[in-house]
Amino acid sequence: MVIVMAPSASDNDIAGVVAHVEAHGGQAFVSRGVSRTIIGVVGSEAVLETLGADGLPGVADTKRITAPYKLVSAANHTKRSTVRVGGVPIGPDTFTLIAGPCAVETPEQTYASALLAKRAGATILRGGAYKPRSSPYAFQGLGLDGLKVLAEVREATGLPFVTEVLDTKDVEDVAEHADMLQVGTRNMQNFGLLQAVGGTGKPVMLKRGLAATYEEWLMAAEYIAQRGNLDIVLCERGIRGFEPSIRNMFDVSAVPMMQILSHLPIIVDPSHAAGRRDLVVPLARAGIAAGADGVMVDVHPNPEAALVDGAQALTGESLDELAQAVTTLPALLGRTSAAHRAG
Amino acid sequence: MVIVMAPSASDNDIAGVVAHVEAHGGQAFVSRGVSRTIIGVVGSEAVLETLGADGLPGVADTKRITAPYKLVSAANHTKRSTVRVGGVPIGPDTFTLIAGPCAVETPEQTYASALLAKRAGATILRGGAYKPRSSPYAFQGLGLDGLKVLAEVREATGLPFVTEVLDTKDVEDVAEHADMLQVGTRNMQNFGLLQAVGGTGKPVMLKRGLAATYEEWLMAAEYIAQRGNLDIVLCERGIRGFEPSIRNMFDVSAVPMMQILSHLPIIVDPSHAAGRRDLVVPLARAGIAAGADGVMVDVHPNPEAALVDGAQALTGESLDELAQAVTTLPALLGRTSAAHRAG
Amino acid sequence: MVIVMAPSASDNDIAGVVAHVEAHGGQAFVSRGVSRTIIGVVGSEAVLETLGADGLPGVADTKRITAPYKLVSAANHTKRSTVRVGGVPIGPDTFTLIAGPCAVETPEQTYASALLAKRAGATILRGGAYKPRSSPYAFQGLGLDGLKVLAEVREATGLPFVTEVLDTKDVEDVAEHADMLQVGTRNMQNFGLLQAVGGTGKPVMLKRGLAATYEEWLMAAEYIAQRGNLDIVLCERGIRGFEPSIRNMFDVSAVPMMQILSHLPIIVDPSHAAGRRDLVVPLARAGIAAGADGVMVDVHPNPEAALVDGAQALTGESLDELAQAVTTLPALLGRTSAAHRAG
Amino acid sequence: MVIVMAPSASDNDIAGVVAHVEAHGGQAFVSRGVSRTIIGVVGSEAVLETLGADGLPGVADTKRITAPYKLVSAANHTKRSTVRVGGVPIGPDTFTLIAGPCAVETPEQTYASALLAKRAGATILRGGAYKPRSSPYAFQGLGLDGLKVLAEVREATGLPFVTEVLDTKDVEDVAEHADMLQVGTRNMQNFGLLQAVGGTGKPVMLKRGLAATYEEWLMAAEYIAQRGNLDIVLCERGIRGFEPSIRNMFDVSAVPMMQILSHLPIIVDPSHAAGRRDLVVPLARAGIAAGADGVMVDVHPNPEAALVDGAQALTGESLDELAQAVTTLPALLGRTSAAHRAG
Repeated sequence: MVIVMAPSASDNDIAGVVAHVEAHGGQAFVSRGVSRTIIGVVGSEAVLETLGADGLPGVADTKRITAPYKLVSAANHTKRSTVRVGGVPIGPDTFTLIAGPCAVETPEQTYASALLAKRAGATILRGGAYKPRSSPYAFQGLGLDGLKVLAEVREATGLPFVTEVLDTKDVEDVAEHADMLQVGTRNMQNFGLLQAVGGTGKPVMLKRGLAATYEEWLMAAEYIAQRGNLDIVLCERGIRGFEPSIRNMFDVSAVPMMQILSHLPIIVDPSHAAGRRDLVVPLARAGIAAGADGVMVDVHPNPEAALVDGAQALTGESLDELAQAVTTLPALLGRTSAAHRAG
Repeated sequence: MVIVMAPSASDNDIAGVVAHVEAHGGQAFVSRGVSRTIIGVVGSEAVLETLGADGLPGVADTKRITAPYKLVSAANHTKRSTVRVGGVPIGPDTFTLIAGPCAVETPEQTYASALLAKRAGATILRGGAYKPRSSPYAFQGLGLDGLKVLAEVREATGLPFVTEVLDTKDVEDVAEHADMLQVGTRNMQNFGLLQAVGGTGKPVMLKRGLAATYEEWLMAAEYIAQRGNLDIVLCERGIRGFEPSIRNMFDVSAVPMMQILSHLPIIVDPSHAAGRRDLVVPLARAGIAAGADGVMVDVHPNPEAALVDGAQALTGESLDELAQAVTTLPALLGRTSAAHRAG
Repeated sequence: MVIVMAPSASDNDIAGVVAHVEAHGGQAFVSRGVSRTIIGVVGSEAVLETLGADGLPGVADTKRITAPYKLVSAANHTKRSTVRVGGVPIGPDTFTLIAGPCAVETPEQTYASALLAKRAGATILRGGAYKPRSSPYAFQGLGLDGLKVLAEVREATGLPFVTEVLDTKDVEDVAEHADMLQVGTRNMQNFGLLQAVGGTGKPVMLKRGLAATYEEWLMAAEYIAQRGNLDIVLCERGIRGFEPSIRNMFDVSAVPMMQILSHLPIIVDPSHAAGRRDLVVPLARAGIAAGADGVMVDVHPNPEAALVDGAQALTGESLDELAQAVTTLPALLGRTSAAHRAG
Repeated sequence: MVIVMAPSASDNDIAGVVAHVEAHGGQAFVSRGVSRTIIGVVGSEAVLETLGADGLPGVADTKRITAPYKLVSAANHTKRSTVRVGGVPIGPDTFTLIAGPCAVETPEQTYASALLAKRAGATILRGGAYKPRSSPYAFQGLGLDGLKVLAEVREATGLPFVTEVLDTKDVEDVAEHADMLQVGTRNMQNFGLLQAVGGTGKPVMLKRGLAATYEEWLMAAEYIAQRGNLDIVLCERGIRGFEPSIRNMFDVSAVPMMQILSHLPIIVDPSHAAGRRDLVVPLARAGIAAGADGVMVDVHPNPEAALVDGAQALTGESLDELAQAVTTLPALLGRTSAAHRAG
């Protein structure tokens, strides 16, 4: 950490900052410049997080230099990690397609969606049993019954599945059935939930919050990792922007940046980013080309009848285009297709 | 709802949309224009929320006309509501100052903060027992012990208190001790938590999410209201912006807009918006002048030693300036000071 | 400037950075920390702006510490400045209302608007002769004829006027007629225009760009100041946000922040921020209470017939409310009303 | 246009709106719903742009349905356009790489950069002679001398060039030398400049403004088109976002959206979006995969010595990676390389 003193800071102010740092268990190194004095601070994460030097007399600014996350930082891992979901890898050497219905509605619709997903090249199924909905008047998902449907479809198709968990009280149920637990955008900083899913030992997909910086996102991952669980996959799904014609702003820069900052795999969800079908394939292609370790998309056998987000679900021709992209683009970037492998 | 058809939409497409609306229990009214056809849809909230017309052939766009929230809408209340917290009103006729430490650290610090709060004119105490922290390495609050400290300080000072609840599992404990439950920014769309606090019958303070639109915020309030609890106070505390020198963007327009859209009281939290002490009083003044029903600020007897957000806590001179603003501005706008009153 | 080296930076890299700094005419001070080395750089503005150290081997990050603007910085002025417009002061001791029609349409409408402005307490007239319009199909203003109308209305009412200039080719004409030149939001970084208005010697109102940081805004002011013209008034008029129900996000924090960072006067334009009449008075009040040196609003005798932005123009009752706020709020904050004074 | 009346609107209000529409030369169609009345408006662009119905009594909201741009709209062109720059096509069938130094510094540096550009597969040279700089203390470009250097390098290499014009007074000079005129981000709504470049008859590259919506961007293009010039290429170069570790937010969704909304070619500039070299190739790949008609990048023979934006300039290995992407990706999407062709 660097503490920048105001031009008007007195020697007393500087001595006060040094004493404050040492009282909190850190070490302070003073560099006196021509117009300003800068104080470098060295100490453990706990020291830096609770230092609170901003309010001290004479302090103009404080700047973190080291990242405030450790377990998920690229700095502490020589190579990028691979996470296995029911035997299917998500990581730097492979490319993984995850597909399925936004919401589990019926066994038939879920099974039909899983077949569509497979046809497009998916090796992991997605599907929502607990649905976070902005409106209390909207369909909220089938809950435990939905989990059972997903488990049956896994049985029938061989596809492991990922599904969202919304509340700490449901973590046990979801962990019992699912191969991977998803923490959604709205819960990225629901710290109790992060700790609970971290404690299950199951792989976790952590979606980015709608207004989360990269650092906040990785700090959320750190909460999971602190529970001893490093099987975390990050998922970029669009952030809040000002453009009215698209639902969210797909931040494709997050793909290379997460690979610079962290060792965790990073995938993209173009369906939720775009909110409209005609953008899903172009954005999926963009994510793959930027280096994503996987893509997750909504598919539906009959989008017009979907209870949730039908407007963004792929089907028919658009699904074939996706399959085409998934077959050709990752290979160009040196990746193999992520089929099931012996662990 | 208005469904705008594409210029290329056929008669078949239009008939398909009408059939779709009717199959979902709504009524459709077709207006054929020169270059476009527009279909008006009338139906219940459940119909409109699950209609999913965006994906139908020939549909160019769909636009909501009525607000998707009902219980908290201004349209359904002739006058703005007053919420009482331990007997203290928050509403259109009064002005209420809520103050206290960001986090409960010790009984002494909390008591000293409460005295500061009183001196500034506060009639409700704030204080965090459960703290949501971006970093897992930061101080997370005293939990249940913190609640007990707050209850003791209430006893000693006569100030009812509001405190944040982070997890559904803690709702019962917090509701047992606190006069008002706060749902924080990071949990604005934690729907299970919203329903749980709605079920306690205690007043709820709902902070705005970092990237929440006004509609999303009011939809979150609707989740609480649906549990039969209309004692909800909205709190603007800054949204994510692009300016690096301030922590959050204080959206003062939210004050008059919430009063146009909803009957619920609206207060502002300039401390968390600004993240720096020298902005707190100017932003508090701005909020009051814009018509806020109250202000909530952090105070601390010794901000330099604060474990959480010391840089934004008021003390000494800045607190006196706030007291001055609280005494003079609301009266100018026709409000009385919100002291304890017989219910 | 502080250059932060990567943990992996070699001694060679560090020596390379030092050599680079010195070759560009700066001085470098190396501080070796436990995990990182930090290099402080001292030098003139020209050195710092052209250093380009980001791309050097071993460099992780570079951070500016001193502000990159000088002439407009608060650091170099012991007290805040007052700018005089046709004799009317805008500055720290007074409060100035500027009002008038968004666009000059006819002599009659402009004169009627000026009378409304006076009635509300305005001492400077605003009015657009050259209008920047997003659509080429919209009314673009009367140009030179509009300037002449404004000059006649000044004659008739005694109000000096401010008007926007859009193009360097019109600067001479506008400077000949107007008492103050306005550089609009869309032109905040039109550097040729900034230099041209700086060269006229007339006071300049510099509106904030729609996505401008405080630093970028002050750098734009620095362009004007470099031409020897420090008679600059900053104007906050709303920035781009994500909320669909308001046109722009009124950033009231800009008022105290500009007073911390700069010695220039700062006013607010709630009409363009809100884009809707029912928000103008609350936002004007908020701006005044936050400490603004003035307010600029649109008024129109017949808003429904206005050619530009009629929806935001004040008239009748809303204008009286504004007059009330202008009369009472500034006095509470220690300001006097800014009438014409002998220069 | 659709005018939505408030629930409380009277018959008088409705009649007033109809009369207002007709007085402005439009036609009004009234649809009375259960809770609301909706009025459809048909009329020319000039009617719709100057209608100003927002402020009328009883009006709750107005919504545009048809796009306010015409000449550049996809609705009025059956196929996407190809723009030729010195004989080199930019359009739907080809893929075009544009590369060169951010700023022209010397003949040698420009020539060396052009050779690097060619090696990477570029068929158009970019280079800045007039540089828009946030700081008045930064290098502002060589001006006319820079144009002459670019013309000489074109002579020597056969590459046509694009260069930015900042001021209407320089348009003639730039148009005399350059093959394509660039209007930069900061000038996207400098309407005088748009009209001036539109009048030259030369192809124009229109960069997106930092906070411009898609509609505002296309309206800016409409200003150029209105002067009879449809040889416009749109360029996405990143918008303002909240993430501190990247300079701008690269909005890759703009690529497919511009192809849905407009017939104009769309390219991407990942160098200015990212502001850091390690992101340029991933973002270039993302842009190509999303369907961009071309990519524009900064290259420099010696980035560490660059006077402008050296940190983002490609060289050596990163340039080879780009060349690899440019060779393989567009072919996969059915595009041929855009070499010079007989016009």
